[in-house]
Amino acid sequence: MTRIDPALETRMANAIRALAMDAVEAAKSGHPGAPMGMADVATVLFNRFMRVDPADPRWPDRDRFVMSAGHGSMLVYAIHHLLGYSDMGTDQIRAFRQMGSRTAGHPEYGHVQGIEMTTGPLGQGIASAVGMALAERMAHARWPDLTDHWTYVIAGDGCLMEGISHEAIDLAGHLRLGRLIVLWDDNGITIDGGTDLSTSTDQGARFAAAGWHVQAVNGHDREAVAAAIEAARADDRPSMIACRTVIGFGAPNKQGGHDVHGAPLGAEEIAAARKVLDWPHDPFILPADVTTAWAAIAARGAQARADWAARLETSPDRAAFLAAQGAPDASALRKAIADHCQGLAADRPKVATRKASEMALEVINAALPRTIGGSADLTGSNLTRSTGMTAIRPGNYAGRYIHYGIREHAMAAVMNGIALHGGFIPYGGTFLAFADYSRPAIRLGALMGVRVVHVMTHDSIGLGEDGPTHQPVEHLASLRAIPNLQVFRPADAVETAEAWEIALTSPDPSVLALSRQNLPTVRIEDEDTNRSRRGAYVLRATPTARDVTLIATGSEVEIALAAADLLRADRINAAVVSAPCFELFAAQDRAYRQGVLCDAPRIGIEAAIRQGWDLFLRPEDGFVGMTGFGASAPAPALYRHFGITPEAVAALARKLIKGEDEWR
Amino acid sequence: MTRIDPALETRMANAIRALAMDAVEAAKSGHPGAPMGMADVATVLFNRFMRVDPADPRWPDRDRFVMSAGHGSMLVYAIHHLLGYSDMGTDQIRAFRQMGSRTAGHPEYGHVQGIEMTTGPLGQGIASAVGMALAERMAHARWPDLTDHWTYVIAGDGCLMEGISHEAIDLAGHLRLGRLIVLWDDNGITIDGGTDLSTSTDQGARFAAAGWHVQAVNGHDREAVAAAIEAARADDRPSMIACRTVIGFGAPNKQGGHDVHGAPLGAEEIAAARKVLDWPHDPFILPADVTTAWAAIAARGAQARADWAARLETSPDRAAFLAAQGAPDASALRKAIADHCQGLAADRPKVATRKASEMALEVINAALPRTIGGSADLTGSNLTRSTGMTAIRPGNYAGRYIHYGIREHAMAAVMNGIALHGGFIPYGGTFLAFADYSRPAIRLGALMGVRVVHVMTHDSIGLGEDGPTHQPVEHLASLRAIPNLQVFRPADAVETAEAWEIALTSPDPSVLALSRQNLPTVRIEDEDTNRSRRGAYVLRATPTARDVTLIATGSEVEIALAAADLLRADRINAAVVSAPCFELFAAQDRAYRQGVLCDAPRIGIEAAIRQGWDLFLRPEDGFVGMTGFGASAPAPALYRHFGITPEAVAALARKLIKGEDEWR
Repeated sequence: MTRIDPALETRMANAIRALAMDAVEAAKSGHPGAPMGMADVATVLFNRFMRVDPADPRWPDRDRFVMSAGHGSMLVYAIHHLLGYSDMGTDQIRAFRQMGSRTAGHPEYGHVQGIEMTTGPLGQGIASAVGMALAERMAHARWPDLTDHWTYVIAGDGCLMEGISHEAIDLAGHLRLGRLIVLWDDNGITIDGGTDLSTSTDQGARFAAAGWHVQAVNGHDREAVAAAIEAARADDRPSMIACRTVIGFGAPNKQGGHDVHGAPLGAEEIAAARKVLDWPHDPFILPADVTTAWAAIAARGAQARADWAARLETSPDRAAFLAAQGAPDASALRKAIADHCQGLAADRPKVATRKASEMALEVINAALPRTIGGSADLTGSNLTRSTGMTAIRPGNYAGRYIHYGIREHAMAAVMNGIALHGGFIPYGGTFLAFADYSRPAIRLGALMGVRVVHVMTHDSIGLGEDGPTHQPVEHLASLRAIPNLQVFRPADAVETAEAWEIALTSPDPSVLALSRQNLPTVRIEDEDTNRSRRGAYVLRATPTARDVTLIATGSEVEIALAAADLLRADRINAAVVSAPCFELFAAQDRAYRQGVLCDAPRIGIEAAIRQGWDLFLRPEDGFVGMTGFGASAPAPALYRHFGITPEAVAALARKLIKGEDEWR
Repeated sequence: MTRIDPALETRMANAIRALAMDAVEAAKSGHPGAPMGMADVATVLFNRFMRVDPADPRWPDRDRFVMSAGHGSMLVYAIHHLLGYSDMGTDQIRAFRQMGSRTAGHPEYGHVQGIEMTTGPLGQGIASAVGMALAERMAHARWPDLTDHWTYVIAGDGCLMEGISHEAIDLAGHLRLGRLIVLWDDNGITIDGGTDLSTSTDQGARFAAAGWHVQAVNGHDREAVAAAIEAARADDRPSMIACRTVIGFGAPNKQGGHDVHGAPLGAEEIAAARKVLDWPHDPFILPADVTTAWAAIAARGAQARADWAARLETSPDRAAFLAAQGAPDASALRKAIADHCQGLAADRPKVATRKASEMALEVINAALPRTIGGSADLTGSNLTRSTGMTAIRPGNYAGRYIHYGIREHAMAAVMNGIALHGGFIPYGGTFLAFADYSRPAIRLGALMGVRVVHVMTHDSIGLGEDGPTHQPVEHLASLRAIPNLQVFRPADAVETAEAWEIALTSPDPSVLALSRQNLPTVRIEDEDTNRSRRGAYVLRATPTARDVTLIATGSEVEIALAAADLLRADRINAAVVSAPCFELFAAQDRAYRQGVLCDAPRIGIEAAIRQGWDLFLRPEDGFVGMTGFGASAPAPALYRHFGITPEAVAALARKLIKGEDEWR
């Protein structure tokens, strides 16, 4: 342990305060309260516990720090600047919240070295940190030689009010994630005023009820904070330390009030703070002893990393560990998928695509040891668990399957955390209708770019009797709307395997929308090409010029093919296009897209709303699908009721070909 | 109190069990476990406590019962059948989950008398029940003579794992909603197996930490259940009663296992249950003493309602109470809004539409005493609180403003509950980006049809430095995708007032997407028409034939007008269409829509993705907006960076007019 010089450590903390208040002032925008309030806690954490090496921000065994209260970003940037991260020079601090700077209003993963995840939307940080802590334990179970780190979170009142925090805290407590330490910025303030405006909950009792170790300290008494972190580390449960702080500590007139949460202090208050903190230096100027002290932290981290690197060289786990880092082996996966599809073309199974996913996963999980499966209490429905996958249990992390419980939102956020940690590719299942519950975490994963696969079954009225609360009608459109998210709706077992292949080799998250009901295999050519990569393709061509093009996804491809058969009896040439992924099709060049779609009249077919189909359809084209909510009845009755049938498609085709406008 | 005949009450409970298992069997689909497990608790609740009058399902002072575990719908249908609701005859029970029946898989509000809300997506019931209980207290504060009822909830493990339950429980505890009683179906079973697969939380301690009164009983010991409900009613905190049950109680071989959760029992097990329960009657046949006992409950409820009706006649609160029921006075609102808009046309304020909303609310809240405002801890940003609106406080419900805390999802669900209860019109604010957090509750409100207004400010990159986690780009499209939800994005103060008028007089929910940044008043004609009702309209016509039509919403209308000015200098006639509500425009007849849009080239302008704009744009038309996530910088820099400027629009217009294809 380092010998602590209290006066110097005080100044190390005040350096954070000064940088934060001055950066927010320069930007005329930002949140000084949390950085100034938590500066003491953060200084203790980094000076006495955190092990990171700014020269190697991706050192796999580094401790993880998550600023769940993402608006407190200046705390993180200040620390990075002080530690000497090469991309966090003074120019970046001065350019806080300006166009083109790295110092965005909320910390952005991928933009700044050492930022473990993007935060801002409250609750996401604490929930994904649970994933990081779980990944550390899973890694330790596999590579004990090379894994031994901690996950620290700073969370505010807002994070702890958000529902996702409940899901995450419960799961962490159940799994006994003892390497997770949450430091609660307990300042009694939210934007509207005192926390007592809206809550009376005893947070300590709440965490204790979920099986956590709980402590409370004065957040400005650094020795008390240090002792609490020591005690937290010694306890094998996840730990919460309530750090009683004054928001904006150091701003003598504004501290403790709710104005200091999210507005610049103003020149007068900053001058007063400089006096109170005994900080005479100009903005962004740091005294040498402070920079030296912070640099010493970085040096200790560098030594720890060097020790680890030496251990790596001689570790029996070395090969297995390295094999799990970076992108997965795409060619090995290609071979496994190609073999699997060859078998499907021969067997031509009639199975639900959720079942096809289970079949593909058997192959995938054998080929890719790094996958971690799970479900939000719908394992038997989502079919996400492969033979031989044992469950993760409290204290036992050798398994590969996570029972997330009825916690769709935390599942998505935890998967983000697992992926961000590295070494694993997580996938988890729920019903497509409940994508609505996990949407903020799905979006955040898309914003960051994480290799996570969301398995979403029961994807339409095809699920039948559970009715409109469970039947997605607008979820495909709403998920396709999220930038950087790939949404697959495979038509059969072959496309399902193809979707898995693309998802697993993509750095961005994916959704697989899968049917509850059985579907025939429609990809019957024995070909070694992943046709789904182009997003949409001609499944059945016409021998001569097309009269009409039928474009469908998933379970409606079968309907399109049947409609084409009906039309053929009338000597009408209908081509059938399968469109398993809109995003990938949109990324193809114009020539390919035009070649697939042609100029003839088109009909889109999907048991969902039309929004988003302008990728394929012009105003004069037709659409057979849903216009409102579903209903509770057996699936075949529903398809007839809503007019999503081969007969309806064929009738519409005949109308369009005759030139009768699709009345819109 | 009624004298209880235990043997008869047992048979009353077994009637529920029989109906549930036989209905699920007939449907070959459904969930028998929860109804059979909770039959005893439900029988005690209805036989000894619940006051409802099946002959008047909308009696305002009835007790409210919410089946939060919505998959247990057969419990509700069985009770309604037994109580003699006129729309729940045997034919409906026999037709459970069939096309056209009222007995949908999950209970559907509006389809069945006496169903207080649609449930199915877990956690929604308990959260909305908090809203109903709060509404009861608010009503009691206003009309004490006429308001005195209870809100009972049956919730399962799933509901209590969902994050929304945390938000709702905390809020209810904080507000001391003592008229709320949650009966937890504590059966230790979830779909994947035992609850210990995924949770170890001490639910009692959890509720206690949030300020609830907590008890635990054997859920099959009816006297214990009754005593617990008595004690819960006597306590002035919200109460949770953990009812330890055996899921599927009565099915001798399958009870207690997770198969009985969501699958028919099968003929063999049903026969065995009939023996064990001593229930020899054929499916759907009920013995006379049982039907008489249940009918007596209905008779007691009818008497209570008659007493209340008599009280209403002579109550000093009568006029005020009746004025708050049913639809609001649309003509009074029209007058208030028209006067307000007249003032705006004269003053022409340059204000953010969130500010314009605040201005409109001053007028609205004075004209409509039944509105209840609130915000998820962003009052100063959402501007949802009017002069004189006092806050709802623990134990004091006379106010009209709710500090929901950082609980967007519960806010939306609580508002659903307040609206469903009757007597109030709730509106609540958050940032548009966080619509993602509350989406399941918003959707459920749209499915049910509730008069709720979601005020969503900071609606685009126009919010500036907070960056991509806070900047909506796909949220307008994703909300427009939800059926039955009106999404308004007003351009100025006049359209904002118009949007409020439409939202408040609509039986379905609405979203108001409002700007953070100032916008000029563009509606300057002094007209007494709510032009927003048509969804989109010509804001600025051209003196002669149009060369191009610029269609914009919200903050981009100003950009469209500026672009039109630039084009006019080049002698190009650009008409400007404002499109504050896509749903309303889509509902106009073809002639109107064609008249607004014309055939000339069109350009859509919105700081959001293009998805959904095919309502206005053909493939050859142009769009100026976003294609991916935002960035952290001051708003003007962002608009320039993303090319959403009058110059860019004008340049595109010139291109299109020349016939150069918009390359897509």
